[in-house]
Amino acid sequence: MEHPLITLTTDFGLRDPYVAEMKAVILGINPDCTIIDISHQIEKFNIRMGAYVLASCVPYFPRGTIHVAVVDPGVGGKRDPIAIETETCFFIGPDNGVLVLAARKSGKLRQVRKITNRGVMLPTVSRTFHGRDIFAPAAAHLACGKRITSFGPEISEIVTPTFARIDRKENQFEGEIMHIDDFGNIITNLERSELESAEFNGTISLEIKKREMTLKICKTYIDVEEKKFMALFGSHGFLEISVNRGSAARALKAEVGDRIKICLC
Amino acid sequence: MEHPLITLTTDFGLRDPYVAEMKAVILGINPDCTIIDISHQIEKFNIRMGAYVLASCVPYFPRGTIHVAVVDPGVGGKRDPIAIETETCFFIGPDNGVLVLAARKSGKLRQVRKITNRGVMLPTVSRTFHGRDIFAPAAAHLACGKRITSFGPEISEIVTPTFARIDRKENQFEGEIMHIDDFGNIITNLERSELESAEFNGTISLEIKKREMTLKICKTYIDVEEKKFMALFGSHGFLEISVNRGSAARALKAEVGDRIKICLC
Amino acid sequence: MEHPLITLTTDFGLRDPYVAEMKAVILGINPDCTIIDISHQIEKFNIRMGAYVLASCVPYFPRGTIHVAVVDPGVGGKRDPIAIETETCFFIGPDNGVLVLAARKSGKLRQVRKITNRGVMLPTVSRTFHGRDIFAPAAAHLACGKRITSFGPEISEIVTPTFARIDRKENQFEGEIMHIDDFGNIITNLERSELESAEFNGTISLEIKKREMTLKICKTYIDVEEKKFMALFGSHGFLEISVNRGSAARALKAEVGDRIKICLC
Repeated sequence: MEHPLITLTTDFGLRDPYVAEMKAVILGINPDCTIIDISHQIEKFNIRMGAYVLASCVPYFPRGTIHVAVVDPGVGGKRDPIAIETETCFFIGPDNGVLVLAARKSGKLRQVRKITNRGVMLPTVSRTFHGRDIFAPAAAHLACGKRITSFGPEISEIVTPTFARIDRKENQFEGEIMHIDDFGNIITNLERSELESAEFNGTISLEIKKREMTLKICKTYIDVEEKKFMALFGSHGFLEISVNRGSAARALKAEVGDRIKICLC
Repeated sequence: MEHPLITLTTDFGLRDPYVAEMKAVILGINPDCTIIDISHQIEKFNIRMGAYVLASCVPYFPRGTIHVAVVDPGVGGKRDPIAIETETCFFIGPDNGVLVLAARKSGKLRQVRKITNRGVMLPTVSRTFHGRDIFAPAAAHLACGKRITSFGPEISEIVTPTFARIDRKENQFEGEIMHIDDFGNIITNLERSELESAEFNGTISLEIKKREMTLKICKTYIDVEEKKFMALFGSHGFLEISVNRGSAARALKAEVGDRIKICLC
Repeated sequence: MEHPLITLTTDFGLRDPYVAEMKAVILGINPDCTIIDISHQIEKFNIRMGAYVLASCVPYFPRGTIHVAVVDPGVGGKRDPIAIETETCFFIGPDNGVLVLAARKSGKLRQVRKITNRGVMLPTVSRTFHGRDIFAPAAAHLACGKRITSFGPEISEIVTPTFARIDRKENQFEGEIMHIDDFGNIITNLERSELESAEFNGTISLEIKKREMTLKICKTYIDVEEKKFMALFGSHGFLEISVNRGSAARALKAEVGDRIKICLC
């Protein structure tokens, strides 16, 4: 690749040397890489938040970008290190769900490999820091032109946590609340592309916290009267439930992880 | 440009994906750019702080640097997106004052353009994130060699908030307190270049918080006795009122935004 | 150098413009540099923490990397600005101990120079910000191929604070606690390379906080029963005293700075 681009998303914070160690390893293998920090302030062990932040910005990166995500409470345990190739880009990290939303958003999955090839790792692999010892060097080798097929055996299924699962029956979708932002907007895991593949007239009926309502899909927050509920696709493509000049989350006592059902009318 | 350099100053913080989205957009348009973070921890909506931080480091960047600043409480409203060319560099951001101090410090203003050309924006422009949809792509296009004249119509006046306004009558200047640092030094918006264009003998009389005093302009904090007041030009070129081994701000009960008058004797 | 790499370790934080000013100066002198942040969140004036963080990641950077560290409570005072060349890389910063651990870890010291040559500094050197005015430009000039011999006179001894001092008498070593991590692991300043130069059978007797114990050097935390003490070399090569699933620091009431003695059996 001419301008290899590697992104990093971790829960390491910025005080400690861990992020710099990953960058050191990458640049030691491929000094031409440009490394972009997505966030290192994912809440510790919060896979869902890591998945959401990564998925939010992946669509803006150029084709061929290599995304490394390390929110990895199971490091050293049974979860596999994996590499994913999609239609547009690559993902490297633990097989615990942190990569799923972003990978799905970036186009069709072409292949998923379990990383077993010692040649794409550091010579010594610790049990506690796969970010530095496996994921960073694997990303750098990929950026050098090494083929993902050499990383290890293909695997057919990846771990998909509930926050990445959408149950669909015709025009009915069941998903969950993935994030509540500072304004109280409720961000779900239902993507525009998913919903628009079904036919509907721009109105949804919603069931959330045992409450039902019918909402129009709006373009901006001010398309409804003040204090009224609405649905819209936020700037990152996920369905949001909002209240104009109010907090939808507070009004519904909604929390991250709550299940929601919608039906396209 | 051979080594295009783009800086970013925002109030987005480092937890969320917003900064990375801007970088993704820039590198998608111009992969040769070097992107430098000035600060993403400007207090939310604090235009004055953003203006001060940007102005502080602009003089150290090489000629031709493109500075993007996004502290933008009015995003989606009436304020214009603008691009400024000065004698030495470029500025891109909202026309709300965040660029003024830095632009003025970097030499004469050559032209100011309202950004209206859709060709230098992302194909879809949200109402909530002009940093990603207008400012970042405009900066990247500038770095590709696109001319600022193509960005939109020239405008003759830019918004100048009180913190960027200096009223001058001959040897009298009226300005305001822009920042109080951790040591209690009072940093004003009066620049060395501004004051040195007037003739004076190195002493100023100062009126601040209804108190008057005559102060020598010193070189370092220890040029006066302990606990005595002094004036000096800080390392960023702004006039500071300080107390040797004490807090000028506490002694004067001064706050950011207070007006000050000085007279060059 | 073809791909000059400069790292920065400071206690400046990320709110203020200081880090960006250093980067601006570097790129103004050598636009080809890649600049990597190690950490800017070293506790203010905490030389020991800066030394530890820098030493932790130095081994992962490629040969020829130039490491700049600015934790510099004595700036403008008598401490010298220095440049160090070791077998594998370069260090630039104040002669207050912040560079010592990392330099030692990166191989034999080839030369240490006091930086006195005004030609490798900014034209104006403030008394308060040597990071920007001396260390950043010196690093950039080094990255341009300027030779360290031109920086100033060679000096034979550098400041070595207690945290970098190891007293050795044959198989007895006396050092101190350098860091206690979030898990309560006690990280000492005793390095694997230092200890392995002595012959021993993998067991140490330890004296810490007036308590004595004999410990096996283990490979991972789970090599002993729960709540038992153990010693191991952590992922950064320093000797750690740990408790499996417990806090060694709490159990021993140990604090950063406490002295420890070990004897290789």
